[in-house]
Amino acid sequence: MLMTGSDLSWQKALLVTMGVAAGLGAALGLELLRSRRRRKHKALWKYLTDAGRACKTGCVYLVGAGPASADLMTLRAAHLLATATVVVTDDLVERDVLSFAPEGCEIVHVGKRGGRDDSTPQSDIDQLLVEKAREGHAVVRLKGGDPLVFGRVWSEIVSLRDANIPFEIVPGVSSVLSAPAAAVLPLTHKTKSKVVAVASGHEVQSLDWTALANGVIDTYVILMAGKTLPNICSFLLTNGRSEDTPVAVIHNAHREGQRRVVGTIKTIGGLTQTMKLSPAIVVIGDVAALGTYDHLM
Amino acid sequence: MLMTGSDLSWQKALLVTMGVAAGLGAALGLELLRSRRRRKHKALWKYLTDAGRACKTGCVYLVGAGPASADLMTLRAAHLLATATVVVTDDLVERDVLSFAPEGCEIVHVGKRGGRDDSTPQSDIDQLLVEKAREGHAVVRLKGGDPLVFGRVWSEIVSLRDANIPFEIVPGVSSVLSAPAAAVLPLTHKTKSKVVAVASGHEVQSLDWTALANGVIDTYVILMAGKTLPNICSFLLTNGRSEDTPVAVIHNAHREGQRRVVGTIKTIGGLTQTMKLSPAIVVIGDVAALGTYDHLM
Repeated sequence: MLMTGSDLSWQKALLVTMGVAAGLGAALGLELLRSRRRRKHKALWKYLTDAGRACKTGCVYLVGAGPASADLMTLRAAHLLATATVVVTDDLVERDVLSFAPEGCEIVHVGKRGGRDDSTPQSDIDQLLVEKAREGHAVVRLKGGDPLVFGRVWSEIVSLRDANIPFEIVPGVSSVLSAPAAAVLPLTHKTKSKVVAVASGHEVQSLDWTALANGVIDTYVILMAGKTLPNICSFLLTNGRSEDTPVAVIHNAHREGQRRVVGTIKTIGGLTQTMKLSPAIVVIGDVAALGTYDHLM
Repeated sequence: MLMTGSDLSWQKALLVTMGVAAGLGAALGLELLRSRRRRKHKALWKYLTDAGRACKTGCVYLVGAGPASADLMTLRAAHLLATATVVVTDDLVERDVLSFAPEGCEIVHVGKRGGRDDSTPQSDIDQLLVEKAREGHAVVRLKGGDPLVFGRVWSEIVSLRDANIPFEIVPGVSSVLSAPAAAVLPLTHKTKSKVVAVASGHEVQSLDWTALANGVIDTYVILMAGKTLPNICSFLLTNGRSEDTPVAVIHNAHREGQRRVVGTIKTIGGLTQTMKLSPAIVVIGDVAALGTYDHLM
């Protein structure tokens, strides 16, 4: 069917009107959605859409990924991951955390589990961070928990400083805090715990237990204590700490299969004999006996 | 001008077409935005829109709000705040954190700064949490830093347990970790720091400094140490700790006006004499001397 000039102008007007209406509708839709989301997560939204935070040239963020569960990561860590172009990650970081990195982001695994053959030497990691930053990348160096707690971060800091690479440390939730939280166990307590000491199970052979066992430290938190728990108890006992001192072992904190066993320096070895004790956090001191309530939610 | 039936049908058709086009446009706009945001913050988006996490009946979340800066809060804390109907908050929590709570959420301040007249007695706080949960609320109990580190959380846990109220502890970044991070100061170090002890400045008078000063503890972190720094140094000195032991004072960590002063047990008193030392974290031990690099970003 042929159309007259008059018909054509109607058609054109209709198309233009449809176009304008669709545009307005789209804008309205966007605004409605933005507004709804803004109201619900106003502060978070403002934070996540703040484009001014990433470094303009190459830089490195030494980021604590938190423990066990991606939602124990900080907002800052999530934001930096979402804007990273390179992520250099330890083995202890949860897989869910890595899913925050954008598509196309280069992810380098530099697993460093004690003595394993496929561990990347620390000097290689130091060099990699410098190289990637020099290429102009916003590099996120992910470490499980908090980067400053047994994270061997100092070597990386010195390398970055010597190479004049801008860097920043982003603290994270350490398992020092999260494992007791999962076991409803207070690290400090008005009368039972005024001084808390933290050490690594890998180091217990070289600590001065004669002095540590004297009762001045109310509470010990020993990280990565799975293999050395019998040694720790033995050191404390032979150096005069009471055999009735409460001990809590928290295995797989905040993970499926989380388990908490509470005993004393004398009994904990027997109670955990058949357990797989890695990953595990050990808490020693009177507060350990408080953590005997089940997690109620 | 009168319109004929034929004119009216054109108008109707035009309006219907505009409406449909606007609707399609709006849907397209929503989908485009959703898709763009999804790609960028896929994991975060999935997490934040997961409606299945909040408690169905009354419950209490004992949440660490992290230190100084809202973006050092965990994703879990942000999510719980955004879905809370009642927030009971300490004074030490940043105002930005509270802006994550939805409109209409009841916010109760229960400030507890040492000895102030307007502090809410702990027993009143315990009771308030139980009451609000019994009314069916999802109560977020916000504490600065981590709830288990000098957070007096045990009294609240016992009250909730005795009242059979479901609760959960959500760990947060403690200033034990964040202040050293802000000062680029590693708490642990392969050779310089294998044991870290944490205490509160409010407690230093009652600690056994004879035993603490013997050098077994590599690093001390003293929270809320502003007023007691001279006492701490004096206790350490008179009990035999070397006067050359490095001491770092970190004031206003992660806040505007952040300041770090590094000296020794002998010199730090003089170096900080004219400073306002609250809030301040004090780090004592060899690692304190490492924290002399400026924050490069």
